[in-house]
Amino acid sequence: MVRSAPRQPVPARRADAERNIAAILEAATRLLSADPAASVADIAKAAGVGRVTLYGHFPSREALVDAVLEHAVGLADAVLDDPALDERPAPEAMAALLHSSWEVLDRHRRLFVAADRIMATERIREHHERPLRRVERLIERGRRDGDFRTDLPLPWLVTTFFSIIHSAAQERESGRLPAEDVERVLVTTMLSLLTSPA
Amino acid sequence: MVRSAPRQPVPARRADAERNIAAILEAATRLLSADPAASVADIAKAAGVGRVTLYGHFPSREALVDAVLEHAVGLADAVLDDPALDERPAPEAMAALLHSSWEVLDRHRRLFVAADRIMATERIREHHERPLRRVERLIERGRRDGDFRTDLPLPWLVTTFFSIIHSAAQERESGRLPAEDVERVLVTTMLSLLTSPA
Repeated sequence: MVRSAPRQPVPARRADAERNIAAILEAATRLLSADPAASVADIAKAAGVGRVTLYGHFPSREALVDAVLEHAVGLADAVLDDPALDERPAPEAMAALLHSSWEVLDRHRRLFVAADRIMATERIREHHERPLRRVERLIERGRRDGDFRTDLPLPWLVTTFFSIIHSAAQERESGRLPAEDVERVLVTTMLSLLTSPA
Repeated sequence: MVRSAPRQPVPARRADAERNIAAILEAATRLLSADPAASVADIAKAAGVGRVTLYGHFPSREALVDAVLEHAVGLADAVLDDPALDERPAPEAMAALLHSSWEVLDRHRRLFVAADRIMATERIREHHERPLRRVERLIERGRRDGDFRTDLPLPWLVTTFFSIIHSAAQERESGRLPAEDVERVLVTTMLSLLTSPA
């Protein structure tokens, strides 16, 4: 194949490969977060590439899921890594963070369900640590500043943060929570949880 | 067999059957809540009965899971159906309810994971409705009495009740939340969530 198409310049081939990789990661993220059991064949089809091309870039399902997680963590991290957040009081920063990133964080969680089936726990934990630490640091700052409660353990508050996002996503899917109410409900619930009762 | 043991009186045989059924339900509840994929053979073994005896009482895995759910709902309902709860202010009643029943409610939830794999959604929903309605009624009363918030939808508050219990159970299992802290953390979290900020 390389010999029969010698005139295609290298940069164009590299651009093709990058386009394919981006399409595969986008399709894999979409399909795996909807159904953790989505097949590699379905992912290739949705990405508009052949299975051989997909396996050329990602030699196994595990390698693909690993890359998808890395990609999703990168997206979540980019959203969470907003220097403006650090300058605002913790409750405001928390509200802004929920507004900007609850969907990214929930998609992220779904991908972990897919990963959980095929990857080593340690590798999954590494991926999970970064966004978790960012949320933890924000809650910690709120506690230091006297804005957030200190009568409940920090890890528990971090857990409820993710659990509340997960519940809201499920309620929206089932139609019990109208899409336009999700953000208000999330922010109100989370701030009540984090704010010490007077 | 009946002919070769004709002297065993009928009440004794009935008592045997009831003991077997109780042992099977107890073992099935325990095994299925630890692992939703637990096999009928393992359940029979843990109950100390043969598979033939088990199938004599529960002709299919579905019939067994259905009976286990019915049994678990009965237990949860018995704990929740405490007339004393109705006489106390809603926040106190909520704290008492969490104390008495969070473990029952969490076990209950795990059984639904097992049921989800083999039973029709409608049948599962019927089982789930009763305890859910009791929690809903308590929260509703608290809202009417001005003790609980009305700025968040009632179904959302019911969902977070179950989701918080589930998170606490997971945190305890993972060792991140010491067993002796679970109840205090649950009650504090739930009341913060239900109580409108001043």
